[in-house]
Amino acid sequence: MAGQMDSNPSKWLGAPLEQLPTPALTLDQAKVRRNAERMRERCQALGLRLRPHVKTHKTLEGAALATGGGQGGIAVSTLAEARFFAAGGFQDILYAYPLPAGRMQDCLSLAQQLQNFQVLLDSPEGLALLRQHPLPAGKRWHVWLKLDCGNGRAGVRPTDPQAMSLARAIAQEAPEEVALVGVYAHCGNTYGCQDVPAVEGIARGTATAVVDFVTQLRAAGVSCPQASIGSTPSCSHPVPEMSLLTEVHPGNYLFYDLQQSQLGSCQLEDVAIRVLTRVIGHYPHRKQLLVDCGWVGLSLHGRDQAPFGCAAIEGHPELRLVGLTQEHGQVEAIDGRLDFESFPLGSILALIPFHACATAAMHPVYYVHAKGKVVELWHPVRGW
Amino acid sequence: MAGQMDSNPSKWLGAPLEQLPTPALTLDQAKVRRNAERMRERCQALGLRLRPHVKTHKTLEGAALATGGGQGGIAVSTLAEARFFAAGGFQDILYAYPLPAGRMQDCLSLAQQLQNFQVLLDSPEGLALLRQHPLPAGKRWHVWLKLDCGNGRAGVRPTDPQAMSLARAIAQEAPEEVALVGVYAHCGNTYGCQDVPAVEGIARGTATAVVDFVTQLRAAGVSCPQASIGSTPSCSHPVPEMSLLTEVHPGNYLFYDLQQSQLGSCQLEDVAIRVLTRVIGHYPHRKQLLVDCGWVGLSLHGRDQAPFGCAAIEGHPELRLVGLTQEHGQVEAIDGRLDFESFPLGSILALIPFHACATAAMHPVYYVHAKGKVVELWHPVRGW
Repeated sequence: MAGQMDSNPSKWLGAPLEQLPTPALTLDQAKVRRNAERMRERCQALGLRLRPHVKTHKTLEGAALATGGGQGGIAVSTLAEARFFAAGGFQDILYAYPLPAGRMQDCLSLAQQLQNFQVLLDSPEGLALLRQHPLPAGKRWHVWLKLDCGNGRAGVRPTDPQAMSLARAIAQEAPEEVALVGVYAHCGNTYGCQDVPAVEGIARGTATAVVDFVTQLRAAGVSCPQASIGSTPSCSHPVPEMSLLTEVHPGNYLFYDLQQSQLGSCQLEDVAIRVLTRVIGHYPHRKQLLVDCGWVGLSLHGRDQAPFGCAAIEGHPELRLVGLTQEHGQVEAIDGRLDFESFPLGSILALIPFHACATAAMHPVYYVHAKGKVVELWHPVRGW
Repeated sequence: MAGQMDSNPSKWLGAPLEQLPTPALTLDQAKVRRNAERMRERCQALGLRLRPHVKTHKTLEGAALATGGGQGGIAVSTLAEARFFAAGGFQDILYAYPLPAGRMQDCLSLAQQLQNFQVLLDSPEGLALLRQHPLPAGKRWHVWLKLDCGNGRAGVRPTDPQAMSLARAIAQEAPEEVALVGVYAHCGNTYGCQDVPAVEGIARGTATAVVDFVTQLRAAGVSCPQASIGSTPSCSHPVPEMSLLTEVHPGNYLFYDLQQSQLGSCQLEDVAIRVLTRVIGHYPHRKQLLVDCGWVGLSLHGRDQAPFGCAAIEGHPELRLVGLTQEHGQVEAIDGRLDFESFPLGSILALIPFHACATAAMHPVYYVHAKGKVVELWHPVRGW
């Protein structure tokens, strides 16, 4: 296909990291595995099913790791992801996005192809769409109701009377065509927190709102087997109230990032993702290095976030990435005294990105390493 | 390859734009052609060769259009672009980026493969790299010296005594191995301007500095046939001093964008790029629409730029895109009175991106349209 890189990244398997062309997205295999394992253990301890969201990495390899190697249930945010993971053998896929009017043919295909393709909606129009596109006899649409428990994006507020009537309609309007699987909330508002107690407060509020809503539903005779909340900050420090849910759907934790370490979701040493970049210029008159990573290799996420901006520079607390253009990064010393001899042209710096989801979206391949060498290549899906 | 979308975008050829899956990057064929033609005419009038930079679109189709259909000389910013355009038949490629120590094998291959592969450098170390990697007999490295005429990124300042000595070394140190082709400056500082006179001031200063430097070189007996400056703002309003150059290398103008219209490089109606997005939710309690374009479909570029932020919404000056998460956009009415009935679920909005280079980098395919239908698909190269 014309749009592909015409070099073959698999030639780097076995190579030392220092040989990779830069900018290069690298993943520490041991850290990714440990992040996956810890989240599974945390969920087991709470008696919760872990349905990892795959939107951060968008790779079969990452999803296999996150589900413990078994191609278990996942959440996706685009139909391109749904198709890609379906083709890769995943049979239990929750398309955790408001049902799109123009894409019902894709949804129909996925529902027919998979053992358990699940959709999400937050409006009567969404339910009407499903009714207009019934599945063949013997199959029903498996539907999650999206609740907005304070995040302020998609979802019906649980206090809105329409929430209960919509849940009832999903469950009872056409039980041979549509089934209510559960209630789903995303506590993305945890990203606005300054510390772990604040994250825990939001997790507690969201879990309680979801569980209360399901309890009301059941009291009203509406079957609703599942209840799920997500976000990496909340699931990295789960509160006891979350044990009343049936599943959770965090995603970023597989890599973590600078933002998550600043939120307290992880320690900086848990962050598995780096962007390797090389020094390409010395400019002593303005006390700056140039590196070969610009916003195409990193994204602009975090630009306004003190103290590091878009990325921290591993092992160099004395340096800051102060500017990014398309393919150039500008690096300065905080105290203005840059020791150029320590960073000869061609030397490598490892950037710890502020937002792993955004940085991963910029790279056509991820280089997974162990003991300093490339041991796997992960290929993400793109598009919609 | 595992990382590809598993749907075939070519099925959309001939389809009305309204049927495209969203978010979708669309290009108005007539506008792209007109933008290409006007830039060619402008350069012809000044007696300048146009060497279009391809980093905005990164497509063979865009480069063919920009060079008038003839696969003429282009500038690229990554080796992935260089390899891609070389494979696509382009023979005159300027790799307009500081020579990378770790990638000399790629540069050697390209220099041997192409009739005219040109490199750029701004340090004695760059020249030493070329000397350490001589081309086979009969071929010389064709080198541009990068000058920094106020942009403050890569390049030697023309007032720095090292500029002259480096130019002389490139031209004379090993004339059988290395040739000085020309002097190259990027006036990216035009992007900080508030109006066209300010852009013209920078263009005048940059062109004059480059021409004066080349004049000094020649007076000192150093052959330097070419002189080039670039940036879409400066080349959209060329000043007479630019006619003393031999070529220019703008890139963004093929699409233009909101930023360029705000800088005065173009009229808003010249902007050829849109991101189509659909309404996926109504949230009257917070007076917001959700649309299916987040930062993966648009980038965060322009977020802090008044009045539109990351994108203007075509035909709807009363609306603003006020928030972006990974796959969601939040739209509000400026006066808080959003007429939800005018934007039913599934209805399409066309976003005019702030920064076309950044938005294009997010899309695996561009849908080119004429008379409301998809007439071409352009496939960009990615990676490094």
